[in-house]
Amino acid sequence: MIDTDIELLKGIANQLRIHSITSTTAAGSGHPTSCCSAADIVATLFFGHMRYDAKNPHYHNNDRFILSKGHAAPLLYAAWAETGLFPASELLTLRQFTSNFEGHPTLRLPFVDVATGSLGQGLSVGAGMALAARLDKLDYNTYVLLGDGEIAEGSVWEAANIAGIYKLNNLIAIVDANRLGQSQATAFGHDIGVYAKRFEAFGWRVEVIDGHDIEEIAEVLGGVGLDDKPLAIIAKTYKGAGISFLQDKDGWHGKPLNKDEAAKAIAELQPSSKSGVGVPIPAPNPLPAPDNAAPAGYPSLNYKVGDKVATREAYGNALARIGEVDRRIVAMDGDTKNSTYSEKFFKKFPDRFTECFIAEQNLVGVATGFGTRGKVPFASTFAAFFTRAADQIRVAGISQANLKLAGSHVGVSIGEDGPTQMALEDMALMRAVVGSVVLYPSDAVSTEKLVEQMALTKGICFLRTSRPKTPVIYGNDEQFPIGGAKVLREGAKATIVSAGVTLFEALKAADQLKAEGITVTVIDAYSVKPLAKDVILAAAKKTGNTVVTVEDHYSEGGLGDAVAGELSVDGIKVHKLAVNGLPRSGKAEELLAHFGIDAAAIMKKVKSL
Amino acid sequence: MIDTDIELLKGIANQLRIHSITSTTAAGSGHPTSCCSAADIVATLFFGHMRYDAKNPHYHNNDRFILSKGHAAPLLYAAWAETGLFPASELLTLRQFTSNFEGHPTLRLPFVDVATGSLGQGLSVGAGMALAARLDKLDYNTYVLLGDGEIAEGSVWEAANIAGIYKLNNLIAIVDANRLGQSQATAFGHDIGVYAKRFEAFGWRVEVIDGHDIEEIAEVLGGVGLDDKPLAIIAKTYKGAGISFLQDKDGWHGKPLNKDEAAKAIAELQPSSKSGVGVPIPAPNPLPAPDNAAPAGYPSLNYKVGDKVATREAYGNALARIGEVDRRIVAMDGDTKNSTYSEKFFKKFPDRFTECFIAEQNLVGVATGFGTRGKVPFASTFAAFFTRAADQIRVAGISQANLKLAGSHVGVSIGEDGPTQMALEDMALMRAVVGSVVLYPSDAVSTEKLVEQMALTKGICFLRTSRPKTPVIYGNDEQFPIGGAKVLREGAKATIVSAGVTLFEALKAADQLKAEGITVTVIDAYSVKPLAKDVILAAAKKTGNTVVTVEDHYSEGGLGDAVAGELSVDGIKVHKLAVNGLPRSGKAEELLAHFGIDAAAIMKKVKSL
Repeated sequence: MIDTDIELLKGIANQLRIHSITSTTAAGSGHPTSCCSAADIVATLFFGHMRYDAKNPHYHNNDRFILSKGHAAPLLYAAWAETGLFPASELLTLRQFTSNFEGHPTLRLPFVDVATGSLGQGLSVGAGMALAARLDKLDYNTYVLLGDGEIAEGSVWEAANIAGIYKLNNLIAIVDANRLGQSQATAFGHDIGVYAKRFEAFGWRVEVIDGHDIEEIAEVLGGVGLDDKPLAIIAKTYKGAGISFLQDKDGWHGKPLNKDEAAKAIAELQPSSKSGVGVPIPAPNPLPAPDNAAPAGYPSLNYKVGDKVATREAYGNALARIGEVDRRIVAMDGDTKNSTYSEKFFKKFPDRFTECFIAEQNLVGVATGFGTRGKVPFASTFAAFFTRAADQIRVAGISQANLKLAGSHVGVSIGEDGPTQMALEDMALMRAVVGSVVLYPSDAVSTEKLVEQMALTKGICFLRTSRPKTPVIYGNDEQFPIGGAKVLREGAKATIVSAGVTLFEALKAADQLKAEGITVTVIDAYSVKPLAKDVILAAAKKTGNTVVTVEDHYSEGGLGDAVAGELSVDGIKVHKLAVNGLPRSGKAEELLAHFGIDAAAIMKKVKSL
Repeated sequence: MIDTDIELLKGIANQLRIHSITSTTAAGSGHPTSCCSAADIVATLFFGHMRYDAKNPHYHNNDRFILSKGHAAPLLYAAWAETGLFPASELLTLRQFTSNFEGHPTLRLPFVDVATGSLGQGLSVGAGMALAARLDKLDYNTYVLLGDGEIAEGSVWEAANIAGIYKLNNLIAIVDANRLGQSQATAFGHDIGVYAKRFEAFGWRVEVIDGHDIEEIAEVLGGVGLDDKPLAIIAKTYKGAGISFLQDKDGWHGKPLNKDEAAKAIAELQPSSKSGVGVPIPAPNPLPAPDNAAPAGYPSLNYKVGDKVATREAYGNALARIGEVDRRIVAMDGDTKNSTYSEKFFKKFPDRFTECFIAEQNLVGVATGFGTRGKVPFASTFAAFFTRAADQIRVAGISQANLKLAGSHVGVSIGEDGPTQMALEDMALMRAVVGSVVLYPSDAVSTEKLVEQMALTKGICFLRTSRPKTPVIYGNDEQFPIGGAKVLREGAKATIVSAGVTLFEALKAADQLKAEGITVTVIDAYSVKPLAKDVILAAAKKTGNTVVTVEDHYSEGGLGDAVAGELSVDGIKVHKLAVNGLPRSGKAEELLAHFGIDAAAIMKKVKSL
């Protein structure tokens, strides 16, 4: 601990309480009591322990702080106001439409790395940051503040598991155990030994403390990094601590005080005579910043048209190829690396690969954490299992995270493994992530080129890869910009829009129809979001405004809905061929036929038009 | 333990191994080594411990068995074949298109309660079953077999937590710790004391055993229910156990043996001289079956047109009202019951309510478990947080589960709490669940009637409720069939299709446009899936084939895409008004205006047509 007066920190903690109360009262909503329980912890961290450049929250070796219990946002904002980053008066704009001080922390603020407020997500992101620090040989620590209600979330234990396995002694979890949840007391109340046992069982060193005793808080923080385990600090606290009529009382979750109550509360709190602005904050060690610049280019490809390569394998090839020159790239998987082919990267760059085991929420959280540190993280598993992390992906969207997801084994074409292993809703889910890019390549060349695009495009990009081998149809120099599409056949009767394995069914249908004197246009819509609306529209206009979409995905929210949703307004008629009904085990070709997404079904549909 | 010869069980275990090998070899795919590790456990459970009527797998007081490690499906099928339920020869149809013996267990088989294979989901379902047994005063036990790789999933620890809290001593988790995952060894290998500590820390009694010692397995199973805790049995096993060239060997995950290897393996296994068919299985106690019949009708409503009631509150009112006569209804929440208003049910029927705390995956799993036992489970939380359970909901679709989800606080209209709390992708997610029903009511009467429909309709039904109060617009006797829609205004210029808070914006726009001499049709599309295509199409044809959809949801996968996806084929032009771009905190009306989904935006769009 730095040489800061305990009394001063007590005063600052009360100042943070006062800010939390005044800002939520001004807003007319918010969670002041959830701020008060953690005020002493946050004051001690920010003004008596953490090493950071308060004027430059993005400095590469600053200690990181994640407020996983995001509803205590006013407390976080108050702490940064007290560092002097902005005037405290701005706190009174809390929750206003024109303010960056949102109800829960978001990236509108420079000191927020990830949006929080969907509980239980912070520790995984923190684990990713801690792993990034290790990779970059930086000595910053990552502090994650969690609520006690929040640690019922399984995602917390996925993160705890990985932190224990990788002995992340630069990761510190602090549990603000204030006993009261939203609608009732937590299951264990102040029996906080339960939490201690759990973290211990997950491989952590644990300290149990009085979360309102600043001396004790500072003392256990002084032990950060002393051994090779991550550190969990279980802090017994009181919701509304410091204010007699709020402390440990039911019925005050998520309620602001009215003006009279606020005045009464503030009268009970002794703020510091000195503001936090004057407190010396220790500077981080000036270690070299990692080189996170994008490379000038990537090595070229070497496929032959006609080669049969599964797109999932091309993904692995691409990662290993571009990882050579793009040092920003890291990868992680959920014990499926031999199926997603991320093992090709792992074998080449073991230091830049994190095995996350079977825990997809944490897989995405860890990747998000790496992304906040300037890395380009590629996380892979079966696309069906990314559904497990749907909320993490949703929130990553709000965080505008730089996150690359590669989901393999999509659709009924995986065959015999059966429905639980088939991703048939992944495009619906990924399209509905704010700012996302959804890519669905059909051959090895387009896959590799799209992986390059993913690495070069900031934001959330999802790559949908297939299990079966498919022939290479593009030359090695073909370009695949995000938002593009390729016209592979031109005809008169209809425009067929497809991607993935069903694109080959469309091509087969086109060739057979041609033999019967019917011509169709076939478009490879490898970029599902953003969709190449102009290309499809232009083609459709030449085919009687008629489009047939074909996809190995449920009928809802996928390629067909994307095309109809964008083109119906232009009077284009979109006929959707997609998977309807309960899938089952079987051979890929049997399933494509059964669900009416094979060449025969496409021909039948075209003829019926 | 029943009086079964240990040697006989050993023989049956080997018979199960042989079936697992022969069926996967016949199929040419599958996971024989993952079956072999658990064969002794399953043989002992099915032929030396569990009480069930093997001829009637659905008997209400049978012990339940969930194969959470679903990839060991051939082992499960083999066990039931050995009970005599069907001829063992049928096992050779494994994974064929025409067979019910799918790659992972599904409901095509009468002895499967939930589809498994997306790992880590079985224990939550088991907890729901165990809670149902308690509610129904039945003494069956629920056994869940998990893999060791699988327990890295956070969902397992959410389930472990709830089972510990509710002291479910009728729930037994058996961990088949065979050391090897799919792509590499598990993090802890055979250091299985780690797992023991974890379950203990989560409130379980733990037994650590040799998973190939049938006497030991039987002995610890004999202790089921002896104290008030759930029981975890950590079984040290070997992948491929019993076959010299497979046992504990890397590189055999998910690989069938070729015919020669299979013959060699089988030669090493000593099957029982007597088949399992002859083994006496103890009958369950003939306790009375619960009355799970639907009621003849529900009490009537008593709203007045013009009353202002949030649909989330009407949900709570409905549950409390119909719960009175519908004893099948149970409810559960994730510590948001005061916001979702499920507390209205909780206060009236505390015995039929399960507080699941902040753990949404388990919330959905517990509800699914209740559903398998003839209950009608209503699970509620903020709709945004159901995203956390997206995979559980996906698999519940495959399980054709009877599951009712009520998600509140949808859209930007929640206002100040900000983006992480806003559900803007829930319709995309829920529409893409196979067999799902998606309902989006606007007023209290329609909400209450739709909750009745949910209770009466088997399957997954999602109710989308809003935070703001909205006026009652329907009379108490109005009917709201699933798949219907209501035409609220009729006009000439365009058909506006909406639901929820934006329906009132549409009505306001219609009334203001009328004052300016422009008439529009307004449709309340309360049933988003199935959509009332006929109603919307008929209206659109009268308004120049022009539809405007308005929704408090992202542009992708919601109401607009649903309407366009179904109607573009008829030449209807669908203009979508939806949330595009990153949401933020603010007042509801500011946000509706900012994202162009308020009355002013609707008027502008209509005038532009």
